[in-house]
This record gives sequence, C-alpha cells and structure tokens, in this order.
Amino acid sequence: MKKAIVLLSGGLDSAVTLFYAKKRGFDITCLTFDYGQRHRRETQSAKKLTELVKAKQVILKVAFPSESSSLTNTKTNLPQRQSLEIKKTGIPSTYVPARNIIFLSYALLYAEVIKAGSIFIGVNSIDYSGYPDCRPEFLKAFTEMAALGTKSGVSGKAVKIEAPLMMSSKAEIVKLGKKLNVPFEHTWSCYEGGRYPCCKCDSCRLRAGGFKEAGIGDPLEEKRAG
Amino acid sequence: MKKAIVLLSGGLDSAVTLFYAKKRGFDITCLTFDYGQRHRRETQSAKKLTELVKAKQVILKVAFPSESSSLTNTKTNLPQRQSLEIKKTGIPSTYVPARNIIFLSYALLYAEVIKAGSIFIGVNSIDYSGYPDCRPEFLKAFTEMAALGTKSGVSGKAVKIEAPLMMSSKAEIVKLGKKLNVPFEHTWSCYEGGRYPCCKCDSCRLRAGGFKEAGIGDPLEEKRAG
Repeated sequence: MKKAIVLLSGGLDSAVTLFYAKKRGFDITCLTFDYGQRHRRETQSAKKLTELVKAKQVILKVAFPSESSSLTNTKTNLPQRQSLEIKKTGIPSTYVPARNIIFLSYALLYAEVIKAGSIFIGVNSIDYSGYPDCRPEFLKAFTEMAALGTKSGVSGKAVKIEAPLMMSSKAEIVKLGKKLNVPFEHTWSCYEGGRYPCCKCDSCRLRAGGFKEAGIGDPLEEKRAG
Repeated sequence: MKKAIVLLSGGLDSAVTLFYAKKRGFDITCLTFDYGQRHRRETQSAKKLTELVKAKQVILKVAFPSESSSLTNTKTNLPQRQSLEIKKTGIPSTYVPARNIIFLSYALLYAEVIKAGSIFIGVNSIDYSGYPDCRPEFLKAFTEMAALGTKSGVSGKAVKIEAPLMMSSKAEIVKLGKKLNVPFEHTWSCYEGGRYPCCKCDSCRLRAGGFKEAGIGDPLEEKRAG
C-alpha cells in the first residue's frame, strides 16, 4: 500500500483532500499543526477526521510569533474582505508568513522518515484569500526545491506533492466532498474559532459561497440555525 | 541598519558566517535549533557566540522524529567516513531529512516578521558531508520558491539568502574565521557532543583537516591535549 502524508488543518479543503487521498487507496499519515491560530478548534476537527478515515496522526506544535499575523494575534481584528490593506497588496492580514512553506517542509521530513511517496495539500488558487503560498507556481517551485534538497530527491525518488483542489472553485470542492462522503459537520473553516462560525470572516464567506453555489446545505450552518 | 537572520548552529561554519554578517554591519537575529541532535551542546556554543556579537537570539525546539537520522538517534552508531552506505548513495546516515529546508523556512518566517532583508546560512559544498541541502543548486531553488511563496517575495522585496562559505574549502573557512576574530574555542563541531571532540566523526575530521591545512591551531584541540 502506497504511503502518503496529508496536511490536514481540519478545514473544508483539507478534509476533502484527505477523503480524496483515502479514495485513491493511500496508507495515510495526517500532519496537523498547532501554530497558535485563533481558530485552534480546527485541530479538533482534524483529530475527528483522522479517526474517521482510520489514518495515523501527527500533531506538531510550531512556534509562530503571535505578531506574525492577525490569525495568530488575538489583539488585532480580523480583516473584512474589502479592507484597505487587501486592496493595496492583494494579501490580507490573515496571511501567516511562510506557513505553507513550513508545513510542507515538515511534510517532507515525515515523508522521508516513513518513506511516503506523496504529500497531499488542500491549497486552492481559485476561491481563496490571495495567499502567495497557495498558488500553482509556488507549489511547482517547492517541488523542484524539494527534489534538489532531499535524499529521496537526489536518489531519483522525489516526493510528489499533490494539490488536487488547486484549480477547483469552492462550489466544486463542496460537490467533490459530498461525493466522497466528507462529514462536513466535522470540518471547521471560521477564523474566529468560536462555538459557531462567525459568518463574517473571509474563510466563512468563501465557505458559505461554495455551499450556496453547489446547492448543498452546510450542516454547520444548519446547526447554528437550529 | 539593515536587518539579517543568521542560522547559527554553534559549529565552525555558522560561527564564521555570523562574524562575517556582523562585519558587513547587519543588525542580527540568530536562529538556533534544538532538534534533538546528539551534540546538543552545540546550542550552548551558539548562545555564547550570539552574546559575544551582541545579537538577538531565538532558540526553537523542532520535533524531528528520533529515527530521522543517526544524528538524532543515539541508539545507532555514527558512521565512519568510508562506510558502505556513504559509498552507495554519497549521503551518510547523519543526513537529517529536510533539515536545512525546515531551518530556512523558519528563517523566512522570522525575516518576514522582523522585516529582515537577508538570511545568512553557513552551508558549504566543498569540504562537506555530502548533504543535498548544502549545495548551491538547492539554495538557488529555495530562493526561487521563497520569492513565489511569501508576501515579501510577491511584493518585490524577496528575502536574499546568502551563503558566503558555499564555495570555500574548510581551510579557507578557518582562515576567514581567524581574520574575523572568531573565538574558535566557543564553536562546536563534533557530532558526539561529549566533553571533548571525538576526533573520529566526519565533522571532527573535516574540522581538523581545515585547521591543519590552514596552519592554524584549533583551541579546542589544544584544550583536549592540555
């Protein structure tokens, strides 16, 4: 059975990616990070999802300085979609410096240790927040760097990095999740990390838009409404 | 004053790199990693060196699984230079998967947080142990990846990664260190991490060869002899 590492935050996209990798028949180890994110409750979702697919799980504490991002600094407000900063740079304050670079680097480490040939990551460059480390050109460059900087790479067995959702709209991701029987109620997207989704942050808006366009009900929303 | 991150293990090469960056006039933050290496005493050297140049210091604990490498697994023996495995792959068992990839990724994170324009790393591809993540082609690929995957990169202010010792022989590194007044007695190279250098591991051999060829005495050796 081929081994794979799945980067699993516990959000919608990484959950769909996990179920996709499972469907492909991989022996999966999920990597989940506690990096001081204000919505740390997403890691609880990650635990639940890992259990449900009977995968192995590694949870890593990664020290991001709290001032890295509005996502790790609870003293700041989360940005609204139209904020001035986003208009200027295209990148919101929820950007966490080098986040996917660090996460993928750890995935490479674990892939080499357990001899996994693939790393799955749920990044998406269509309905996304404008983070540079979610784009195909970044992932291509990371893959090339990894092939040059690792033993597996220079031995001709470079780890493959798969981003099956890269070019999907959020609605397509929701539809794929439905097809793969992803338990949406056990995924968590909201940046605020309260008891229910805030329905205001960028992540909530993208999620709600996806479910609406797909014509599928979000069980998290229904729970809130109920 | 321009800011820089220096990756400082506490070994000879990173110490010389630190003093080189200092000479260049940077406001320096040293990043040192405790990754379960058997020669963890090198981090004590890193602390001392950081104090001596009056730099800021961040020490990060990074969870490398102990089975990653003979450098993190004290139940294995350290390889001798001529071991069968090295002959076969060119890479010794002291290789730690994705080590410099993870270290440089953290350096990128801190560079973005403190707005440092440069990262210094003491890698060397001449008198080295054959690690793939110490070669110029790797560093070039890492730089390209970083430019695409970070806010600084896409904003046209990509962090520069400098490896001033990349093409130097160990003797040239020793000579440069001497010129820069690096306190060699406060550097640590031996993989064993005992009270004195073992003088047998690959790292000890490379160091001893460098001092010998440079015609300079290694104060650590003299301490041992004394």
